[in-house]
Amino acid sequence: MQKPTAPRFPEALLRERVDARLAEAGASAESRAAAVKAMLHASLVGVDSHGVRLTGHYCRMLEGGRLNRQPDIKVDRRGAGSAMVDGDDGLGHYAAYKAVEMGMELAREAGIGAVGVKNSSHLGAAGAYALAGAEQGFVTFATTNTDSMVALFDGAQKFHGTNPLAFAAPVPGTRPWLLDMATSSIPLNRVLLHRSLDSELPEGVAATPEGVPTTDPHVADMLLPLGGVDYGYKGAALAGVATLFSALLTGTTLDPDFIPMYGTDDISTPRNMGHFVLVIDPDKFAGRAAFGAAITQYLFSLRTSPARPGGRVMAPGDREWAEMEERRANGIPVDPDSAAFLGL
Amino acid sequence: MQKPTAPRFPEALLRERVDARLAEAGASAESRAAAVKAMLHASLVGVDSHGVRLTGHYCRMLEGGRLNRQPDIKVDRRGAGSAMVDGDDGLGHYAAYKAVEMGMELAREAGIGAVGVKNSSHLGAAGAYALAGAEQGFVTFATTNTDSMVALFDGAQKFHGTNPLAFAAPVPGTRPWLLDMATSSIPLNRVLLHRSLDSELPEGVAATPEGVPTTDPHVADMLLPLGGVDYGYKGAALAGVATLFSALLTGTTLDPDFIPMYGTDDISTPRNMGHFVLVIDPDKFAGRAAFGAAITQYLFSLRTSPARPGGRVMAPGDREWAEMEERRANGIPVDPDSAAFLGL
Repeated sequence: MQKPTAPRFPEALLRERVDARLAEAGASAESRAAAVKAMLHASLVGVDSHGVRLTGHYCRMLEGGRLNRQPDIKVDRRGAGSAMVDGDDGLGHYAAYKAVEMGMELAREAGIGAVGVKNSSHLGAAGAYALAGAEQGFVTFATTNTDSMVALFDGAQKFHGTNPLAFAAPVPGTRPWLLDMATSSIPLNRVLLHRSLDSELPEGVAATPEGVPTTDPHVADMLLPLGGVDYGYKGAALAGVATLFSALLTGTTLDPDFIPMYGTDDISTPRNMGHFVLVIDPDKFAGRAAFGAAITQYLFSLRTSPARPGGRVMAPGDREWAEMEERRANGIPVDPDSAAFLGL
Repeated sequence: MQKPTAPRFPEALLRERVDARLAEAGASAESRAAAVKAMLHASLVGVDSHGVRLTGHYCRMLEGGRLNRQPDIKVDRRGAGSAMVDGDDGLGHYAAYKAVEMGMELAREAGIGAVGVKNSSHLGAAGAYALAGAEQGFVTFATTNTDSMVALFDGAQKFHGTNPLAFAAPVPGTRPWLLDMATSSIPLNRVLLHRSLDSELPEGVAATPEGVPTTDPHVADMLLPLGGVDYGYKGAALAGVATLFSALLTGTTLDPDFIPMYGTDDISTPRNMGHFVLVIDPDKFAGRAAFGAAITQYLFSLRTSPARPGGRVMAPGDREWAEMEERRANGIPVDPDSAAFLGL
């Protein structure tokens, strides 16, 4: 999404500046550490919409009172494999990383840890939390519901958010298998980009306010679920899975009921967003060694599978890890407004 | 998929005949009960490909020795929230229902039960097992990997199976929310139907042996993952999620390595198929009452959401439950070959 000509900055400088701005806005050291980690993950793997550009937004919400600057997170263990985390209305990244930590603690004994999060807020890229578990050797699932902007299948109203499903799995000796997918085909900022470039959208990814599929970015008002005009009932149901875990099991806000993330005067009322993580210890199933051998064989078989003419076969995460290498070498592109906010 | 003119038969008669044929093929009472239950679920909700028409196939596999007629299922509790089920090479339905039972037992205490299955075989429709948990009040996920027939994104080879993801959730006073989706856009039998009718396929659902997308059912050789030509990397990764849970965590057969379900002379070697179920007790999160109120509100909001011109908004499962009502009233259509095998 980033224009290729955007100026680039080193990771360490961005970490320092994001942290400094959040500190000025009053965020506690713990919540800053979590937010910086998650935002830099997104910026490094190329998900700029959830990266350092959100610093200004989070600062405004900390200053407005929507976000608690000094959250006191509470973890309520509900069973040998289950817990609820109360984010105390702080930065969602902090609550979500806490949920993964609790999930790992539960999984080490029970084999699996299922942790719901309530009284949270925007967590950035869900993949950051799946990754946090995988980096410690656990198969991890993370999801959240978000502000309505995707039509139902055959619907004429924004209903679900782009509700991500993120999975990650450890791979011996190399970076994790990582999937972080919106349950719409494209994110909203893709529509905005096409609008600014006056270029047609692909078929089946967006609709007019009446729910009629359109490729005109200027009349596109909402996204369509993954699967498009014919199979979008699958994407809509997967968005429902995110809501089922994140909101229905945790007792938090439904997608259409959120105070909007942007474009509202109310920046003082907490949004009570929910998330959910599942953390699985491979040692309690076929065993860690067998799992490691199997996923290595699976990925070898996948990556050496023939491609169609002009195509390239990749495993989930391969594109992200390549992007991370490139950005670590050449810097992370930052749009002018965000660069100015960060004093770059 | 069933021709509308196929003769129809009452559910009770089909149950009796399927059970009788499986008994003649030597299947134990327990494995028959499970297979009949799962097959009738599929036949009632309209998934005919996984319904009573498989009776003949299962009987041949029981007689050939691929399937153990008298399996002795072993359940190995691995942690407070985790277990492995050894299906002893019997009918997959039996092992999968056992996994759900064990999952519920674990979830009642731990909040969640994660159960892997090994040494199993074809389980029919994965939704049957998600439903079995939901009918007892648990949010349930069931998945399996299957024989390769779907290309990777940009791939030119059958790699994953149609690997289903099935989720179900209890809804107070009414039937469960139910999603049972293949991670391809369409099933293989849709291609076969278009071939027999000489009618074009939709765009982006199938490919030639070289991996080139095609709408010609006569040259279509493999399926494309959900998301089609542009976003199929999401469907391919979701198929990978099914393999991750079902095969990698359980140490069972990878999709490309299965002895084929059909079209092989080897009907005596077990296939060591794996499955995975997750069973969650809402009482260990926001609580059963809060969950029931939330899902009721969510579904009301979803079903009353406006439709686009000519469209109709439905919740996952609505189509299936309507089909079940219709088939209970008017009988279940059965193709001539299957009807003959069942002595109808």
